[in-house]
Amino acid sequence: MQAPKALAFDVFGTVVDWRSSIAQQASGFVAQHLPHISPEQFADGWRALYQPAMAACRSGARDFVALDTLHHEMLQLLLAQHGLPAALQHSAEVAELALAWRQLQPWPDVPQGLAQLRQLLPVVTLSNANVALMVAMNRFNGLQWDAVLGAEVSQHYKPAPQAYLRTAELLHLQPGELCLVACHHSDLAAARDCGLQTAYVARPNEYGGAPAPDRAAEQVWDFHANSFGELAEQLAAVL
Amino acid sequence: MQAPKALAFDVFGTVVDWRSSIAQQASGFVAQHLPHISPEQFADGWRALYQPAMAACRSGARDFVALDTLHHEMLQLLLAQHGLPAALQHSAEVAELALAWRQLQPWPDVPQGLAQLRQLLPVVTLSNANVALMVAMNRFNGLQWDAVLGAEVSQHYKPAPQAYLRTAELLHLQPGELCLVACHHSDLAAARDCGLQTAYVARPNEYGGAPAPDRAAEQVWDFHANSFGELAEQLAAVL
Repeated sequence: MQAPKALAFDVFGTVVDWRSSIAQQASGFVAQHLPHISPEQFADGWRALYQPAMAACRSGARDFVALDTLHHEMLQLLLAQHGLPAALQHSAEVAELALAWRQLQPWPDVPQGLAQLRQLLPVVTLSNANVALMVAMNRFNGLQWDAVLGAEVSQHYKPAPQAYLRTAELLHLQPGELCLVACHHSDLAAARDCGLQTAYVARPNEYGGAPAPDRAAEQVWDFHANSFGELAEQLAAVL
Repeated sequence: MQAPKALAFDVFGTVVDWRSSIAQQASGFVAQHLPHISPEQFADGWRALYQPAMAACRSGARDFVALDTLHHEMLQLLLAQHGLPAALQHSAEVAELALAWRQLQPWPDVPQGLAQLRQLLPVVTLSNANVALMVAMNRFNGLQWDAVLGAEVSQHYKPAPQAYLRTAELLHLQPGELCLVACHHSDLAAARDCGLQTAYVARPNEYGGAPAPDRAAEQVWDFHANSFGELAEQLAAVL
């Protein structure tokens, strides 16, 4: 195996701690409207609607829709599931809260580790987040990327092969020259099926310590690290 | 007119001094193979083939092709025009020289001025350069952008309306909320026709002091500055 020529990153969970960030931003809303659950349960419930929300786009039943829009719809559905009134679901307050995914904080090792990785290789996002969401999040948390690629630019949500292959193509790389960095076995498995290299970074607190839903998809990945800094050390040894 | 919410930049000429950079990189090649012309004349000749090279893609006669590829074809054509042998045209040396456009230096005001502008608003590239070219150039000259958008992502070369409108759409902006920053009146005119705001930055040395080929397309633009720093001052006053 040759060394990769660029790194493409999953973002939600791998780069940013969505659960803590969403819980923090939603805490006032939850206390007011859903006092029987915790902000973390609210975050988990919202995120649980993520895969179903993309299903219609993935199957082709619906044209590609930006994740900002799906986040809004998922939030409205979550509130409906909790029996909250339609007026609240369609309120400006809820439309504003839907953009909480633009303000997620990275895991503690990420700012320094990503800068180290970027000194070694180009780093791009390969997220299901749309461009406007990603640009806003990067400006919020200060992370520096070489390009924002992924689902919206390829018009296909992961794990569709086009999301991985179009990212490699836009970088003028063969699939095997690009390495996906992710904390999700399912994402890495789809990337490997497309011929990409794979780097697993463990994020044991993504679900607050609860087991990951895709743990059954675990394989031996090309790289395996516990932080971005550790991955940088491993890559530096093969470059 | 409301203040813009993001800035999209033309790159060749507006951000980087392509003429001096290409002349410098090609100087050895020119001395060896074309000793009767200067490296600057070589750069001008290469660039003069730029608009014709995109014509087939613009008309639809040819599918969208990355600018890296067109740069290579333009270089081969230039060498053919000078009567150089086909073996040289198809050499690895010429394929390598074709990538000189990935290593262009910015005008002196750009590094600090772009950082100032980026503190005010998101800054993205809206160039005919393909993504891989832009990523490589940014890593070469150290400029920091919020996203690499433009021709390849929209699959249309400027001045096609799709290049401007798709960039606004990916940023979730109305056309009138996005401002094109460019030193070319023709580019700004096409952006204005799409409803974008316009900021002209003068680059009197783009052609080594010779008059710009599009000077007849001059209009009164929304902003008019002599440097990125001056534009940052003007924008700060309206934001």
